[in-house]
Formats: sequence, C-alpha cells, structure tokens
Amino acid sequence: MHFHHHGYVSGDPRVQPAAGTGIDRPDELPDRMDVLIVGTGPAGMLTAAQLSRFPGVNTRIIERRPGRLEIGQADGIQARSVETFQAFGFAERITAEAYAITEMAFWKPDPADQSKIVRTARTIDDPAGISEFPHLIVNQARVLDYFAEFMANSPTRMKPDYGYEFKDLTDTGAGEYPIEVTLVRTAGDEAGSERVVRAKYVVGSDGARSKVRSAIGCTLDGDQANHAWGVMDVLAESDFPDIRLKCAIQSGGGGSILLIPREGGHLFRMYVDLGEVPAGDHGAVRKTTIEQMIAKANEIVHPYTVDVRDVAWHSVYEVGHRLTDRFDDVVAEERGTRTPRVFITGDACHTHSAKAGQGMNVSMQDGFNLGWKLGHVLEGRGPASLLSTYSEERQVVAQNLIDFDKQWSTLMAKRPEEFEDPSELEDFYVRTAEFPAGFMTEYAPSLLVAAPAHQDLATGFPIGKRFKSAPVVRLCDSNPKQLGHLAEADGRWRIYVFADGAEAGAPSATAEFANWLTTAAESPLAATPAGADDDAWFDVKVVYQQAHADIDINAVPAAFRPKVGPFSLTHLEKIFGVQEGDDIFDARGISRDGAVVVVRPDHYVANVLPLTATDELADFFAPLLAV
Amino acid sequence: MHFHHHGYVSGDPRVQPAAGTGIDRPDELPDRMDVLIVGTGPAGMLTAAQLSRFPGVNTRIIERRPGRLEIGQADGIQARSVETFQAFGFAERITAEAYAITEMAFWKPDPADQSKIVRTARTIDDPAGISEFPHLIVNQARVLDYFAEFMANSPTRMKPDYGYEFKDLTDTGAGEYPIEVTLVRTAGDEAGSERVVRAKYVVGSDGARSKVRSAIGCTLDGDQANHAWGVMDVLAESDFPDIRLKCAIQSGGGGSILLIPREGGHLFRMYVDLGEVPAGDHGAVRKTTIEQMIAKANEIVHPYTVDVRDVAWHSVYEVGHRLTDRFDDVVAEERGTRTPRVFITGDACHTHSAKAGQGMNVSMQDGFNLGWKLGHVLEGRGPASLLSTYSEERQVVAQNLIDFDKQWSTLMAKRPEEFEDPSELEDFYVRTAEFPAGFMTEYAPSLLVAAPAHQDLATGFPIGKRFKSAPVVRLCDSNPKQLGHLAEADGRWRIYVFADGAEAGAPSATAEFANWLTTAAESPLAATPAGADDDAWFDVKVVYQQAHADIDINAVPAAFRPKVGPFSLTHLEKIFGVQEGDDIFDARGISRDGAVVVVRPDHYVANVLPLTATDELADFFAPLLAV
Ligand SMILES: Cc1cc2nc3c(=O)[nH]c(=O)nc-3n(C[C@H](O)[C@H](O)[C@H](O)COP(=O)(O)OP(=O)(O)OC[C@H]3O[C@@H](n4cnc5c(N)ncnc54)[C@H](O)[C@@H]3O)c2cc1C
Ligand SMILES: Cc1cc2nc3c(=O)[nH]c(=O)nc-3n(C[C@H](O)[C@H](O)[C@H](O)COP(=O)(O)OP(=O)(O)OC[C@H]3O[C@@H](n4cnc5c(N)ncnc54)[C@H](O)[C@@H]3O)c2cc1C
Repeated sequence: MHFHHHGYVSGDPRVQPAAGTGIDRPDELPDRMDVLIVGTGPAGMLTAAQLSRFPGVNTRIIERRPGRLEIGQADGIQARSVETFQAFGFAERITAEAYAITEMAFWKPDPADQSKIVRTARTIDDPAGISEFPHLIVNQARVLDYFAEFMANSPTRMKPDYGYEFKDLTDTGAGEYPIEVTLVRTAGDEAGSERVVRAKYVVGSDGARSKVRSAIGCTLDGDQANHAWGVMDVLAESDFPDIRLKCAIQSGGGGSILLIPREGGHLFRMYVDLGEVPAGDHGAVRKTTIEQMIAKANEIVHPYTVDVRDVAWHSVYEVGHRLTDRFDDVVAEERGTRTPRVFITGDACHTHSAKAGQGMNVSMQDGFNLGWKLGHVLEGRGPASLLSTYSEERQVVAQNLIDFDKQWSTLMAKRPEEFEDPSELEDFYVRTAEFPAGFMTEYAPSLLVAAPAHQDLATGFPIGKRFKSAPVVRLCDSNPKQLGHLAEADGRWRIYVFADGAEAGAPSATAEFANWLTTAAESPLAATPAGADDDAWFDVKVVYQQAHADIDINAVPAAFRPKVGPFSLTHLEKIFGVQEGDDIFDARGISRDGAVVVVRPDHYVANVLPLTATDELADFFAPLLAV
Repeated sequence: MHFHHHGYVSGDPRVQPAAGTGIDRPDELPDRMDVLIVGTGPAGMLTAAQLSRFPGVNTRIIERRPGRLEIGQADGIQARSVETFQAFGFAERITAEAYAITEMAFWKPDPADQSKIVRTARTIDDPAGISEFPHLIVNQARVLDYFAEFMANSPTRMKPDYGYEFKDLTDTGAGEYPIEVTLVRTAGDEAGSERVVRAKYVVGSDGARSKVRSAIGCTLDGDQANHAWGVMDVLAESDFPDIRLKCAIQSGGGGSILLIPREGGHLFRMYVDLGEVPAGDHGAVRKTTIEQMIAKANEIVHPYTVDVRDVAWHSVYEVGHRLTDRFDDVVAEERGTRTPRVFITGDACHTHSAKAGQGMNVSMQDGFNLGWKLGHVLEGRGPASLLSTYSEERQVVAQNLIDFDKQWSTLMAKRPEEFEDPSELEDFYVRTAEFPAGFMTEYAPSLLVAAPAHQDLATGFPIGKRFKSAPVVRLCDSNPKQLGHLAEADGRWRIYVFADGAEAGAPSATAEFANWLTTAAESPLAATPAGADDDAWFDVKVVYQQAHADIDINAVPAAFRPKVGPFSLTHLEKIFGVQEGDDIFDARGISRDGAVVVVRPDHYVANVLPLTATDELADFFAPLLAV
C-alpha cells in the first residue's frame, strides 16, 4: 500500500483523501452528472467502484431497491474475480469469510441399487494450479458490500443512490449532457414521482430484464427455452457425507442436484434441476414451493436425508444462454461514424446457465473493461473512440463464452468411453483448464491490443489475455512480492520493463529505453499533466535479471524512480530483482534481451515490445492519449 | 469464520449480534461496572478487546486523551503479536498496510576512512523461519484502531470512553463493587470536574507514569539512568542505499542510528542515540530539537545525506529497563490469603529499552494473559484464584525478558573474536532465535500449567509455551488449514485430540476418550451451561492420522461434532486429517498412540496427556472450573 507521500496519514490508509467531485459530494442525486449507472448488481458496482477513483468524474449509481441487496442471487466467485477483488483491495477479506472450493465430488446411482446414490469421483478443483487465487462461494450481497466500501473510501466518496428506478432515456443529441433519463422514485416520501436527469453517459447494469437495453433497442437472443432450477439456501442437518463439498448429484430416478456449500460452516445451497421450461408453461414452474424442492432433494440424495431446519432464501431461477448483438447504443450502420453514449453490461446483455456459474463473474469483467475507459475519456486522458472498444471487445467475449460453455457442458457430460480418441478428453481438459477459473478471455487486436508481432519476447504474457502474476523481489526493502498483485484498480496504464542482462548502472538497452521514457517528446509519459505525480497516468516498473541484493539502487534510471507528492519524494517501490528459485524471466518466457510489456488498467496485456521499439511504443499510445 | 448458525447473517459476519451488556450499552460511563480499564494503549486495548467477547461482563475502558491516538509511540510488531492479531481477526489487514521486515543491514565506519560509513552485513530477519507470521512495522495508532474495531463488532459493542483521567482509587472492601475510583474529566463541557465510579476490578494500563501503579503502592525499579533517543518519523529524500531497510548504523564519530522504515513506502523513523541520561540532566536531553536530530543524523550517515522534507512526529524518548515486583494489589504478605482486585499491565509495570522493541509487544501479551481470566471469573466460569496467576505469570516473564534482553544486547554487540568458544555465538543464536520474534515466553507449572509429566507425547507443543500452529486438512470441506489459526480470541479453552492410529469408526482409545468427554460427569465439558452451544466453553478438535479423504465423517464420535445454535446444527469443522507431505504428527513430535493437548484461551499449552488419562484431565480442570 502506498501512502503518506502527500503527508502523514493517521487513520486507515484505505480511506483516501476526498478530492474533486468527492469534496462536498451532494447526498441527493443531482440534475446533471457525467455518468449515470443503472443498477447496483456486480456489473454496475464494479463500474462505479472503478470510476470512484477518477475524482474528475461525477458518477452516480442508482438502484430501484430501497437499500443494499440482503440475500440470494449468485454466489460462485471464480479465481479471476478474486484476482480482480485483489486489485480493489478486498480479496483477503472476502476469502476469509467465504467458502473455498478445493475439491468437488460426483455422486451417481449405485449400479447395484439404482435407488441409492454413491460417490463415483472426487476431483481437485484446480488440478492444473491455474491461479494463485482461490475459487470461492459467498453471497453476492457481500461482493457488493465490498465494492460499496471501496467507493466510499475513494476520493469521490461515492455511495449508491437507492430508491430510483430507471424508466426510459432519450439521446437529445444536444449539449454537454445529451442523455435525458426519466427515473421514478421507489422509496421515501416521494415514491412514485418522476424525475428527469441528464448525463453524458449512461450505463445500464440493470440485469436480465434491463430497461436500458430496451431503450437502446437491443434484445436478448439465444436459447428458445429457459432452464429452471429450484434454488434454496438452507441450514440443515444431514448424514450426506459430502454435505460441505461442492457436489454434482444424479439420482437413479433422473433427478439431479448441484450442491454448493456456503460461507460460515453450515449454510448450503442446492440447485434442484427442474428441467427445460416448456413453451406453454405460463409460470407454472415458478410456482414450485420450497416444500416441493426439499422433498425432491430428499428423493435425490436417498439413502441420505436432508433435514432442513431454516430456509434463508429460495427461488425458482429460470435462465437460458442469451445475448444481444451489441452492448451499446451505436447500431451497426452507425459504427465508425460516432462513439457510444449508452452502454449495457452484465445480465443486461448476456445471461448464462446457472450450472456454469459464469453470470456474476462475466458481469464484473464487463464493468472492469468499461470503467477505466469512461474515466479516461471524461478526465481527458484519452479519446472518445476508446468507448467503442467496449462493445467490440465484450460482445465477442460473451459470444465465445456461451459457445464454449455449451461445448464444455456437453463434453463434461460425456462418459470417457464416448470419446473417439481416448486422448481427446485429456487434451480438452488441458486446453480448457482456464475456463472454470475465468481466464479464457483473450481480446483480439484492436486500438487497445497490439498484434502479437513480438509475442516471442514474453511468451508467458499472451497479448490480449490478462497479465498473469509471478514472484519478484522488491529492491528497496527486500520484500518478496507478486508483481501482478501490485496493480491496483486505479485506472493507470502499466509499463513493465524487463531489463536486458546489463547491470543497472551500465550502458544498456534498458538504460536507453528508460531515458527515452522520461525525456522524449513522443514518450507516452510526456502526456502526464504538469503538476501531477510522475506516475499519475503511467505506472512504470522495472525487473532486473539480477537478484535484488546485487542491484545498486542509486544507479537505477530516473524513469523507475518517479517523484511523487507535494514533497517531491522518490517512489522507490518500482524496482525489482528476480526471486531465487522462481525467476520470472523463466516462469513467463521473457527474453534475456529484455522486453517491454504494456498492460491495460483492467489487467489485460496490450503490447509486448523489444526495449528498442520506442517508435512502436509511441505509435501504440498516440491514438490512446490524443483527445 | 463460523456464522449463520444462529440464522442467516446478511451483512459483515465480523459484526456479531449485540448481546448481554452490548444491548442498549449506554454511551456515558456508568456509575458501576465490572471492570474498569485505565488507558487505551496496546495493553489496555487488548484486554478490553478480549473482554468485549464476554457479553456477561460490563467492561469500560477510559482514556485521558479526548480521542484516539493519532501519531507516534511504538511501531515494532513481533511475529507473536501478529499471531495474536490473527486471533483478533486483523493480521491480514494490518500486514497489508504495514512495512514487513525481511532483512536488516548493518553499517559501520569504513576502516579505510572513518568519516564514511559502509555496509558490513545484510542479514535475513528470521533466518530460522521461527514463525509463519511476519515481523512488521506500523504505527501503534493503527494497532489500537484495529482493536477498537474488534470491540465495536463484538456482542458487547464496546467503545473507549475518552476524556477521563484516572486520579486515584481505594479498595473499600465493601459490597459487590468494592473499588472506588476517582476520575477527572479532561474534555468536553465538564472538563476539570471529578467523577467517582465503582468497579469490581480495575486494570491500570496507564503507561510508564501509571497512577494506578502508585495507587496500589508499586514502584518501577531497575536501571539507575534512562537512555535517551531522539526519535523522528519523517518524509525525506536520501541517497542512503538502504533507506527502506531496517539498519543499525554506527559512525566513526561514535554516533549511532537505528533506522526503521515505515508503512506506506516513504516514511521512516530514525532513533538517534542520545546516550545515557546523566544524573543531573534535569530534562536537558529532552530539549534536543528536531533540527539537532536531523543534523546529527546527517553527520552519522555521511557520505550520504538525508534531506528531510516533512516531519510527521518527533520526540525525545527516555527509557530504561524497569520493573515492579508485583503486577496486582496483593502485597507479598497477603499472597494466598486473598485474590487481587486491581492489576497493572504493560508499561505501567515494566519498561524496556527502545532498542529491543519489546514494549508494545510484551504489553499486549499482558493483556492477553489477563483478559480471559477476568472474563471467566466474572461470567462464573472459573474461580477468583485464576486472577492471582496473572501477576505470578507475567511478573516472572517480564523479569526474564529484561534479564535476557540485557544478555542478548551484550552478546549481539560482541565481535566474533571476543567469544572464548567460537561455537558460543552460534549456539546462542540457535538457542535464542525465538526471542526477537516474541516466542520465548514459557510459563512455569501452576494452577494453569501442568507439570510436564507427559511432554514426550507431543514434544513440539512444550507445556507453558504458546501452541505453535501446523498444517492439517479439514475433513468436511477438504480445506487445508493452519490448525492454530483457527483459535480465535473468544475466551475458550481448547482441547486438541490427536488420535491414535485407529480409523474413526473402530473401537480405539480415541473413541473411548471422546465418549468420556461427552458423557462423563467429571468431564470438563459437563460444566458447559445447559442451553449453551455444545462448544461454548470448550472447543474440542480432533486430528486423525489418516488423510482427510480416508476418514468416514459419519463414524466420527459425537464429541467432535457438537451441536450449535437454535437449530441444533452439527458443527462439522472440528475434524481434521493430516496434510500429505507435512504430517502434523511428525512436525510436532506427536505420539502415534495419540495425545490430548490442552490449550489456554491465550494460546499457551496448559497440558499434554495420554488419551487414557481422563482422571488427570478431570483433575486438571476441576480447580479451574469450580467457582
Ligand atoms: C432473483 C435472482 C436470482 C438469481 N439467482 C441466481 C442463482 O441462483 N445463481 C446464479 O448463478 N445466478 C443467479 N442470478 C444471476 C446473477 O445474480 C447475475 O448473473 C449477476 O448478478 C449479474 O450481475 P448484473 O450486475 O449484471 O445484474 P444483477 O445482479 O441482476 O443486478 C441488476 C440490478 O439492477 C437493479 N435494477 C433492475 N432494473 C432496474 C431499473 N429499471 N432501475 C433501477 N435499478 C434496476 C436490480 O434491482 C439489481 O440490483 C440471479 C439473479 C436474480 C435477479
Ligand atoms: C510519548 C511516547 C513515545 C514513545 N515512543 C516510543 C518509541 O519511540 N519506541 C518504542 O518502542 N516505544 C515507545 N513508546 C513506548 C511504547 O509506546 C509502549 O511501550 C507501549 O505503548 C506500552 O503500552 P501500554 O499500553 O502499556 O502503555 P501506553 O501505550 O503508554 O498507553 C497508556 C495509555 O494510558 C493513558 N493514560 C495515562 N495515564 C492515564 C490516566 N491517569 N488516566 C487515563 N488514561 C491515562 C495514556 O494516554 C495512554 O493512552 C513511547 C511511549 C510514549 C508514551
């Protein structure tokens, strides 16, 4: 954690000094704002949390409920989401209160007696060790709480505005705040009354029945029918031996349950499969009672029993794989002629089968993709064209994910003997190991993602995928660190300089690159506003090939020792050596001639370049910084 | 974390439901209370935090300052303290914001040019890997903040009462609340006015100039003279290469500095040695100005410079090794005839050289020792005789610590060639490796600590020392866990049952012991009040010799599956298997015939017994439970 550089901080360093729109932020929703986010689900809250770190941007997030979410909805947190929480500073805390999945069990009918179930397999949840982050289960409400805390601690002092329902919007095309939005109060004295506000941008994170989506003329297409699950979060006594393990249970009678243990040591969730919802159902499946769910669950787990003592939440969750063809208000014919003003994120633009446990996770990554782009555009760091990349990037990701999920579910359901080639299954597992952990996303080359011309210089940082951390040792204080975990959700670009073999003081490609960075007019760093900290827009870090104790700190170029704060103090925590026994150059296939790895504020690798490719680097950033 | 068993918890599970004295707790200091703690330093705050988990006890903690500590004082946190913070739920958070010491550097005059300093050594901070917890540096104020948060989240909803100064007390010997305490308000409208309150017990945690100490007729004895340090917490620019490492710096001119990097990446503390304070000093040393300290520091670090840009805090800290002969109000002649009513803890009863960095750490362990004893006595779990053990245990510890610290400092200052036997230094290092991390404390046999008759059954859990954690795997959810980290500061005794080799279902010594625990009239568990959770007073855990996947959960005895909460749910998180490759039986020298390890609420091992020694176990607990 980096603080005290603007003067001594006596209290919790996580609470940043109020700044910009956070100074005297009005409690009441104003008439005009830069960004209006609709809906406080995971998608909306992450976007808001990200924007809360841009003091120059006036962001508000409305919610039709009168207060915070209290119970229910999703609970599966992939490792990629925990990695993201780490950037928002709450991975450790949510992990401490969550259930961590380390194994999964499979139960099938006993071949000897179909009326009974038996355990057929018990598998490690992440056998390939894909991530250093865990796979968690915790109530969605707690995820939202942590984002709310992050916002409240941010310079903008953001808080959700509860009790406002989005009704409709029009793009007036006029003035600085072109989007006119009609809201209805749902709580308080003025409940039922309408209110019209204006915004520069609107983000519809209002869930599967999104009204923002309708307002921009999108529809969810995909599966003909919904699949239905009876979902219950219960406290119960049970002699089922794996009651605290994630289990897929299939009974001889054809019923099936997905059992998800929950936080706290007792609570668990059961998804009782209610099957495809037939065309003429007219809501019949939704009438399934909790008593029916419990009875069905007991049938399925026979000879074991589940004696439910308390029902915390239950619901019939109906959903199918569906997707809109665009995630913003720019229709196909208009693409390239104007930049978007209205966006939709999360369930508003894509829904997923409950089985895959993707919903909340993908939705947050939508927000992580969009948030910084809005921040950059509104603070004048980048051009409005950045905003077009949101729909381009995320619509494809959602489509791929749905396609892949279907393929994955089909293959997972196949029995080994059904595969033509016996190695097919194994290949499939290896190839797709990243999927359940949320790491399959790979953005295609675009304004923001370079073509992989120099990928060979750092094969372990695939361009378009998220920057996978590895251990290093910080020079100034000899602290072992995970390099990637230092990348906070602060909206900054990151430039990782992996040095060539030369020592810090010696003339070298690294030294020349460093010199260019701080002195060249074409260097992206030249865009940093006068008066701001040297590292305000770009977080430049260097990793030498030597061990930390063998690097002379005073010989390290100035580019890696930026000045920060009103006292113009040197920030010494940007310089690293390799960790003995776990050399990041080996672990990530980095060339011993060095490499520059450019990483986006949302953690995705944007470019890999040789140390000499200053022109290419300048060219890459030019269209991202020009306004 | 264990929750939801009393019904669904929607918010932060760290915030426990208000109970007992926490329901409608008055904001104003009441006229009568069970425990009055004087002083919100580390000693007082830990005691208060511990007592905050006893809803039946009305505890108040007063402080003469008008509000929280904001800056300055101690900052060194030993691994034992971080281990303790873990029990209070904030180890990870404070670690995230603190400076972690991994190496220390030594600088001495350059033999070739005495006017310059050179680095002579760089050593690993914990070369022996004594603890899985780090050695931290962070402002004392933050430690206090975390304890305050813990209290506020406790069932008692405790908050310090700021703005009250302790003036004097008398033991009236009368009534339920015999101690009459005179306080003076130091803040608010009524500043200066006196207030008389009454308490059952008073804890003086009021620092080195303790008035509670005077009131019970104790004095601090020890070093004739104080040693003085100019202490400054500063933001500075410096070319000193180890400015972010803990350093002992000695200059040719005879000056010396202890450099302590601090949290946040920029701040550091320098202790500029001002030497022994001469007898006739009359406060002269205390007049050392910050300019003088900075000038002296620059002299010492020559040829490097320290350009101070901002002074966060500075002080002249004068201290010597001093100690009182008792830590409570029972004078020598009275010992054994009555139990104490007034206690002193922390700096009020012992002070330590700033160099050793013991002060804050030892003070907290005083509080950890005393807190649960007061809780047990006042809630009627244990007899008042428990309270006599506080002074008995901690006075000796403090004396040993001071003796040892002197010996340690002397030996550390010796040059290798000064040792008679070359192996002396090495032996010394190995023998004392636990000292700087805070793990040397070893309580002698007493009411609370058994004689080590069966120590051979678990050589890695020395009786009288704190229970050192080791990894295990939880049966119910396959989660790898550190066994010791599950011991929260909840005031409960812990009984760890290390099973013999038999399987869970088989007849065995483990099964018999388990049966005795839950059914025998002499079992300590029989003392648990009717209606309370089965594990309300005793947290019983079992570790089998098998891997978790090979244990049949339904065959595990009921003693290890207690019922909890209003729904009478089975608590399944008490059963463990060994971790492959790191078997706790091997790591801690536990007999393959099994062993029972009894651990006090403050983490110290109280007894080690064979599985068959039910009589001995009953005898051990009998005097601790009888009221
Ligand atoms: C009732 C329910 C049960 C669910 N159960 C499961 C489950 O069992 N398993 C699972 O994996 N996933 C479940 N989900 C889906 C999962 O919660 C979503 O995939 C995930 O939350 C997507 O996040 P989001 O932010 O896009 O949308 P959501 O979390 O749906 O958030 C949308 C938010 O917008 C608010 N909102 C909606 N319309 C308006 C409006 N007009 N004006 C203002 N605010 C509005 C909503 O109140 C809500 O807070 C459930 C969702 C719901 C709604
Ligand atoms: C000014 C100062 C500077 C220090 N600097 C260093 C340092 O540089 N390095 C180091 O290692 N240690 C330092 N220490 C010592 C270190 O802080 C202590 O060892 C440690 O805090 C001991 O904890 P404690 O709880 O016993 O006492 P303290 O932390 O001293 O807490 C005592 C508390 O009681 C309050 N109090 C005192 N008298 C009364 C009264 N009559 N009524 C009500 N409240 C009262 C005080 O305001 C204080 O909050 C310093 C202590 C002080 C006071």
